[in-house]
Amino acid sequence: MPGRRTKGLFEMDVTSVGGFLFAVVLFIGSILIAPGASLGSFIDYPSAGMVFGGAVAAAMMSFPLKTLLLLPKVMLKAVFPKQQELAPVIQQLVQFAEVARRDGILALEGKTSEIKDPFILLGVQMAVDGTDKELLETIMRTEMEAVASRHKSGKSLLDLVGKYAPAYGMIGTLVGLIIMLGNMSDPDAIGPGMAVALITTLYGAMLSNMLVLPFADKLALYSRKEMELREAIIRGILSIQDGDNPRVLEQKLMTLLPAAERTAKKAA
Amino acid sequence: MPGRRTKGLFEMDVTSVGGFLFAVVLFIGSILIAPGASLGSFIDYPSAGMVFGGAVAAAMMSFPLKTLLLLPKVMLKAVFPKQQELAPVIQQLVQFAEVARRDGILALEGKTSEIKDPFILLGVQMAVDGTDKELLETIMRTEMEAVASRHKSGKSLLDLVGKYAPAYGMIGTLVGLIIMLGNMSDPDAIGPGMAVALITTLYGAMLSNMLVLPFADKLALYSRKEMELREAIIRGILSIQDGDNPRVLEQKLMTLLPAAERTAKKAA
Amino acid sequence: MPGRRTKGLFEMDVTSVGGFLFAVVLFIGSILIAPGASLGSFIDYPSAGMVFGGAVAAAMMSFPLKTLLLLPKVMLKAVFPKQQELAPVIQQLVQFAEVARRDGILALEGKTSEIKDPFILLGVQMAVDGTDKELLETIMRTEMEAVASRHKSGKSLLDLVGKYAPAYGMIGTLVGLIIMLGNMSDPDAIGPGMAVALITTLYGAMLSNMLVLPFADKLALYSRKEMELREAIIRGILSIQDGDNPRVLEQKLMTLLPAAERTAKKAA
Amino acid sequence: MPGRRTKGLFEMDVTSVGGFLFAVVLFIGSILIAPGASLGSFIDYPSAGMVFGGAVAAAMMSFPLKTLLLLPKVMLKAVFPKQQELAPVIQQLVQFAEVARRDGILALEGKTSEIKDPFILLGVQMAVDGTDKELLETIMRTEMEAVASRHKSGKSLLDLVGKYAPAYGMIGTLVGLIIMLGNMSDPDAIGPGMAVALITTLYGAMLSNMLVLPFADKLALYSRKEMELREAIIRGILSIQDGDNPRVLEQKLMTLLPAAERTAKKAA
Amino acid sequence: MPGRRTKGLFEMDVTSVGGFLFAVVLFIGSILIAPGASLGSFIDYPSAGMVFGGAVAAAMMSFPLKTLLLLPKVMLKAVFPKQQELAPVIQQLVQFAEVARRDGILALEGKTSEIKDPFILLGVQMAVDGTDKELLETIMRTEMEAVASRHKSGKSLLDLVGKYAPAYGMIGTLVGLIIMLGNMSDPDAIGPGMAVALITTLYGAMLSNMLVLPFADKLALYSRKEMELREAIIRGILSIQDGDNPRVLEQKLMTLLPAAERTAKKAA
Repeated sequence: MPGRRTKGLFEMDVTSVGGFLFAVVLFIGSILIAPGASLGSFIDYPSAGMVFGGAVAAAMMSFPLKTLLLLPKVMLKAVFPKQQELAPVIQQLVQFAEVARRDGILALEGKTSEIKDPFILLGVQMAVDGTDKELLETIMRTEMEAVASRHKSGKSLLDLVGKYAPAYGMIGTLVGLIIMLGNMSDPDAIGPGMAVALITTLYGAMLSNMLVLPFADKLALYSRKEMELREAIIRGILSIQDGDNPRVLEQKLMTLLPAAERTAKKAA
Repeated sequence: MPGRRTKGLFEMDVTSVGGFLFAVVLFIGSILIAPGASLGSFIDYPSAGMVFGGAVAAAMMSFPLKTLLLLPKVMLKAVFPKQQELAPVIQQLVQFAEVARRDGILALEGKTSEIKDPFILLGVQMAVDGTDKELLETIMRTEMEAVASRHKSGKSLLDLVGKYAPAYGMIGTLVGLIIMLGNMSDPDAIGPGMAVALITTLYGAMLSNMLVLPFADKLALYSRKEMELREAIIRGILSIQDGDNPRVLEQKLMTLLPAAERTAKKAA
Repeated sequence: MPGRRTKGLFEMDVTSVGGFLFAVVLFIGSILIAPGASLGSFIDYPSAGMVFGGAVAAAMMSFPLKTLLLLPKVMLKAVFPKQQELAPVIQQLVQFAEVARRDGILALEGKTSEIKDPFILLGVQMAVDGTDKELLETIMRTEMEAVASRHKSGKSLLDLVGKYAPAYGMIGTLVGLIIMLGNMSDPDAIGPGMAVALITTLYGAMLSNMLVLPFADKLALYSRKEMELREAIIRGILSIQDGDNPRVLEQKLMTLLPAAERTAKKAA
Repeated sequence: MPGRRTKGLFEMDVTSVGGFLFAVVLFIGSILIAPGASLGSFIDYPSAGMVFGGAVAAAMMSFPLKTLLLLPKVMLKAVFPKQQELAPVIQQLVQFAEVARRDGILALEGKTSEIKDPFILLGVQMAVDGTDKELLETIMRTEMEAVASRHKSGKSLLDLVGKYAPAYGMIGTLVGLIIMLGNMSDPDAIGPGMAVALITTLYGAMLSNMLVLPFADKLALYSRKEMELREAIIRGILSIQDGDNPRVLEQKLMTLLPAAERTAKKAA
Repeated sequence: MPGRRTKGLFEMDVTSVGGFLFAVVLFIGSILIAPGASLGSFIDYPSAGMVFGGAVAAAMMSFPLKTLLLLPKVMLKAVFPKQQELAPVIQQLVQFAEVARRDGILALEGKTSEIKDPFILLGVQMAVDGTDKELLETIMRTEMEAVASRHKSGKSLLDLVGKYAPAYGMIGTLVGLIIMLGNMSDPDAIGPGMAVALITTLYGAMLSNMLVLPFADKLALYSRKEMELREAIIRGILSIQDGDNPRVLEQKLMTLLPAAERTAKKAA
């Protein structure tokens, strides 16, 4: 059921997208309503090249290529996050615990085709294969840390763009000012010259504050949520391997949910 | 007794409100007494839209919708805090310990209607239901952490507004300057043009320093106090479940109060 | 002997006061010797109201009233600190240990009138009352932490003034600039208008750097010293309650003094 | 096979170099396409001396000579990193464990000529010499920490240049402004004078943001990777000394690799 | 041999001194080669008084007098550091361990006249006096922490000057600007007036970046080295008191040296 899965896991984050569009509308609107202003005077390709290019250059120097290539995926993730709820995962794990208790852990083999989350799949397969408990936990934690570290790289990348874009904006403005100050024979050119010089600073501030820094915060949040989910999965798999009572497992995992959601789930 | 409860739990924080009004009076007063100034020249709707709208946009991109919708509640909480004193809570817990010791823990069932704090209620009900001690503690701590994390989200939200409002203020000023510098044919328009450009920076600084950042600090303080209270409640419920001597429980919890309040309470 | 006590405990911190006066003299002197400058042009009551009032408003919004009312006491404490030396306290504790060893712990009852430090008094009285050792330590540590937290609140209050005073200074300058830029019909008024606008920034920088931030550092230092002293007292009281040999106690506490003071004390 | 080794260990970091060249091209390009600008007006030797020299002077005052002399090597390392993959090292360690198990630990003596990594060599030689296990671990960890601390010094050095270059840039601009403001008899000289004054600020921002700070981040990344590798080596050598089963060792070390690489390796 | 000792322990840090002189030469040189500039226009006594005096005033308000009086000593220490190498200290401790093993610990009494380092002397004398092992360690660690805390105070003092010097520089510039803006009747005086106003900012930036901050970093480094040395001494003395085999002691302490130095020492 790939359709359902995509819907369940990769729904668009309407708030993120809406926030960004709102910021763009604010910016364009504030120019359009200003008397004597035109959007055209805010478009300057060399300035855009300096700020965007500079941020890319700094990212190339700071990160390995492998991390850099994550950037488009990282940006997309803030817009189409992989949001999995904790409650259905708990339900699935409890159900597996019931199967394992009733028919033995090998009976889970027949369930693997139902598992859509690769992390749960990894754990269940190792449990079915009779992997040593300690080793199973180490492997799952290493895997979880690898994902966490990938998320952290993605966030660092956005943070870096958020730091160097204004820096290159300032460098561009200094270049513009130096050019303008060296050619002051025509006083009428001073104003427009300075306007152009300031555009790189504006681009740097916009790229940083209207796009990457808020998205970096949202990514950190999604990462925290995903790690909580994976923590629950690890505890669940270990508990299944131990042959724990499914009720005890449910009680244990339910404590990870705050009271409000706990009650809602019971009622459902 | 909802009237009494509202008074006890949600009294207005007069200092917070007074501080904000004082800041507003200072600002308006300083304009009114300046020769040649009018309040009108400090009101500019597009500038306000840029700064307030920008902060909202950044919040939408940084936080999930659920947290965003907390914002009005969060602001209200800095004005009408839920302030519960530690001493009466200790008294109530000690009284429950006496009942439990005298008539058994089930006798607390009759007391549940008297309990107004839902966190104490949760604990007492679980104790009466005979919930396993370890599970009871885990559930109460998870609940406490969920509240702490909600408080932290609220504070982060204010901190974010306090960070992005000045950033959008600067973006607005840059936009204003670029427009002004591109239209310098009329020298008389330069001054007023720049004045308008500076208004977004002023709005950003005011929103940040006169409203959200000080309130974020106060919220952090209220959260710390509430967590101390909940810690005492958890210790108390566990002690009641253990059937501790009410005098020992009182002594234990009283050490959470500094000497001054301890003596005051004894005298009372 | 209240006279001697005041002298011993609350001597004026001549360095603090001298430093502040030196800063004031530097400031006034640098104006007086400047050609064409007058002190009068640096006095502007609305600007002072904006910066000082703004800092107070921010403090009202950030802190509870109880902490705010500490401000004058906190400032006084940086000038008249409660400085107690570690060596005489150690001597007194050793003397009490001797009495307790020779005549029993109850014999300390007769010594309580000699004790001027309320923290030592609290400990000795609990020891005489036969308070359980663990409870005694918990109560003394809670009391010590309450003092530490009061000190920390005081320091945070000064830090806050040091942060918001420049912010309100900038707000005031922006207000002044906007007024000035909106009234540029009289070119002769531009200079003085800008001078007045800059005064709030100057006041903010002065309040922050010439008064509150350095005092906040000194308070943190006094707090650290007092906590070291209280740590020694707690260890001492517990040792007395245990009936430790007074020589062993002395040796233990003396290790808290660095070599130089240790030798000086032996010689004395 | 020194040729192969150089290739394997010291390949050029094309992304780093490309990023830097991209930044340079952006900068030069943005000047060349600006009307009325010439590259020549951006070259000012005294300004370059001030910023580069100032950064060197600050580095001389902050670091010992030994660390300073690392600077060229440190910069080269960001361009030609010593990148060792974890997987082949694990393979080699497993192979040594097989030899040690089959023929005794002394049989590894014959393998030492094959070992190219001096850190593995140090460990294997100590194991062959029958060094006490605890001592072997202490020596290897001391060695690893010495390398980590050398890496950290290198990064601190770049961070320092990234901090003081803009500071000296500002000092240079202040000097230029003061000179210009003291000689305003010729109004035509004001613009160019200010242009020259701004060049030091530009140089400082460029040296910091276009070169040293991004490279400092990349170095930190390489250092982290190398420490992970050395950690695996230490664990491997200790396991070999213990006579662990080579399969167990492989399993243990493989957990350090995330799932993706683990599978890739198995397939290979 | 006091001559040799002074040479060994207090050699001038040529790199520090050279770095500072280099910075001074850069500064003076950049003024001398600028057309139309004179060194004289960069000397302004009231400005110097404001910045240097202000830093002193802030230090007086932030630190106790005892710490303040360390300032000249602290600055001297960055120039004439007390640099002791670890290797000869290890050698001396091993030699003492041999004596103590052969002739008993009391035989070290005859060696005390040879000991130049007061910290080693303190340890050896306590060991000879038969001080209890735990007490000996506590006393030596307290002494070591007292030194570390003195170093930290020295560094904090420099950091403080590095923070307040630019702050007072800004205050001075604001004062200068306000005076200048209030007296704009003579347009020719505007330039020089502003030049003078900027001199305090320049002085603040120079005092901070060309002197105190880099020296603060170097002091932190020396302190770290000295603490490593003292740690080795404490371990050595305790090992001697335990009657450890001198070879074992040597091996233990040698692990504190990285491989390179270890080999160099063996060869020597």
